[in-house]
Amino acid sequence: MPVFEKKKKIRFGHTDPAGIMFYPRYFELLNEVVEDWFDEALGMSFGVLLGEHGVGAPLGDIQTRFMAPCRLGDHVVFRLNVSEVRRATVALTVLVLGGGDEVRITSKLVLVCAKKDMSGAHDWPQSVQDRMKGYLEEGCLS
Amino acid sequence: MPVFEKKKKIRFGHTDPAGIMFYPRYFELLNEVVEDWFDEALGMSFGVLLGEHGVGAPLGDIQTRFMAPCRLGDHVVFRLNVSEVRRATVALTVLVLGGGDEVRITSKLVLVCAKKDMSGAHDWPQSVQDRMKGYLEEGCLS
Amino acid sequence: MPVFEKKKKIRFGHTDPAGIMFYPRYFELLNEVVEDWFDEALGMSFGVLLGEHGVGAPLGDIQTRFMAPCRLGDHVVFRLNVSEVRRATVALTVLVLGGGDEVRITSKLVLVCAKKDMSGAHDWPQSVQDRMKGYLEEGCLS
Amino acid sequence: MPVFEKKKKIRFGHTDPAGIMFYPRYFELLNEVVEDWFDEALGMSFGVLLGEHGVGAPLGDIQTRFMAPCRLGDHVVFRLNVSEVRRATVALTVLVLGGGDEVRITSKLVLVCAKKDMSGAHDWPQSVQDRMKGYLEEGCLS
Repeated sequence: MPVFEKKKKIRFGHTDPAGIMFYPRYFELLNEVVEDWFDEALGMSFGVLLGEHGVGAPLGDIQTRFMAPCRLGDHVVFRLNVSEVRRATVALTVLVLGGGDEVRITSKLVLVCAKKDMSGAHDWPQSVQDRMKGYLEEGCLS
Repeated sequence: MPVFEKKKKIRFGHTDPAGIMFYPRYFELLNEVVEDWFDEALGMSFGVLLGEHGVGAPLGDIQTRFMAPCRLGDHVVFRLNVSEVRRATVALTVLVLGGGDEVRITSKLVLVCAKKDMSGAHDWPQSVQDRMKGYLEEGCLS
Repeated sequence: MPVFEKKKKIRFGHTDPAGIMFYPRYFELLNEVVEDWFDEALGMSFGVLLGEHGVGAPLGDIQTRFMAPCRLGDHVVFRLNVSEVRRATVALTVLVLGGGDEVRITSKLVLVCAKKDMSGAHDWPQSVQDRMKGYLEEGCLS
Repeated sequence: MPVFEKKKKIRFGHTDPAGIMFYPRYFELLNEVVEDWFDEALGMSFGVLLGEHGVGAPLGDIQTRFMAPCRLGDHVVFRLNVSEVRRATVALTVLVLGGGDEVRITSKLVLVCAKKDMSGAHDWPQSVQDRMKGYLEEGCLS
């Protein structure tokens, strides 16, 4: 099963007075991983997507469960794969794994390919859509 | 139906190169509204909760749908109410309303009352639990 | 002496594992105060400045001294005034005052009126420049 | 001259509606670089410094000049070196270099070794102080 993974260090600036990752910082890290997936795996940075194709990839829907805390100094892995690719959306699952592959956080999210002015949806560029399908989990259809 | 509302201005620092609110900033604003609800409506700031009661209120679960974009300069209202109060959790619904009461974003979230070291759940302080029930939506049980 | 003041609450999301405001959050709050000054006192929001005048107000230079910590739950006042107005720059002093008018943080900053594409400086719109002068500290020249 | 360098990508979440890095994000990145310097070069993470030594390293003073903009998708280098080491402070210079070694941003900052409760200064742990001196610029004294 093809997956995209990124290691992240839980930093001082991510943590709160209880020493635990503050959840808006989680969403910043999640967005970084999605951004790197576009850039490194799909061959299309957010800058090029916006500047040359005139489209963005805003979040339409997200469901996140926080199962175990991430603490200052932890090293975790963000593991991304794809559950569905459509003409103008993509559904992703992202797991955050701590020591010994403990699942700390899970997110299911849907990104929308939207015109820059947010006036409506737009098809993904073909090369992007093709590469997204390479990250489909086994048993998922596109 | 008792609700807790806060007005927010969509600021320069909330918006991305497409002029739209960047979603991690939404979660920062959401947390501010929840923090103000504890402080102003439940009579218990996060600082006192942590410092005097030794508990925090981390997010356990959240589902968010982004239905219409928030843009630089928009004035929106965050409207919070409660769908369920349990001994050590509370389920909230938060709507973000734009001009003319258009629903832009909806979140359903569950906060957990957790010991400061995150070793386990802990009952809400009684006064907090009592006041939370005052924000229950009609037809919801606690 | 005309000043522009804003109250701020030091929030959970502003503070670090030591319970002290994390300094990048200070700069977020500082920018909010400057943004409100443009919006409320100078009659020109950043959105209108960018969208209608085609200019932004990026930071050119800043000097900040942190003299006493801001802690979770503190209520502080940001006090802004102007030390110099030029055609395409403005120099500001911002103090952060804690209980009993203790000066916690001081910043001296210079904002530049820059073309949206950052290709060069541009004069402030006349109405903005005129109103800026109303916030000049006594003894300062424009 | 010994220097500590980190590459950074200017991300979607760092940039504003004009496509330029929003300056509070610069201070987040700067703090990440300082944190990595402690962790990787000085052998002392912020977590260990706080948890085992009971001290933090808050910012006392900073002077920053923004000379050229950083844009979405830019790859830049943060270059850190030390100008002075004292018992309970360290003075750093950090340059942000864009394509062709163009200096985009310079910061001069002083970190203070402070007791966790911020009640006063404390000597740097000896191993930290010794390693800091290894990053002193030529011609600087400690």
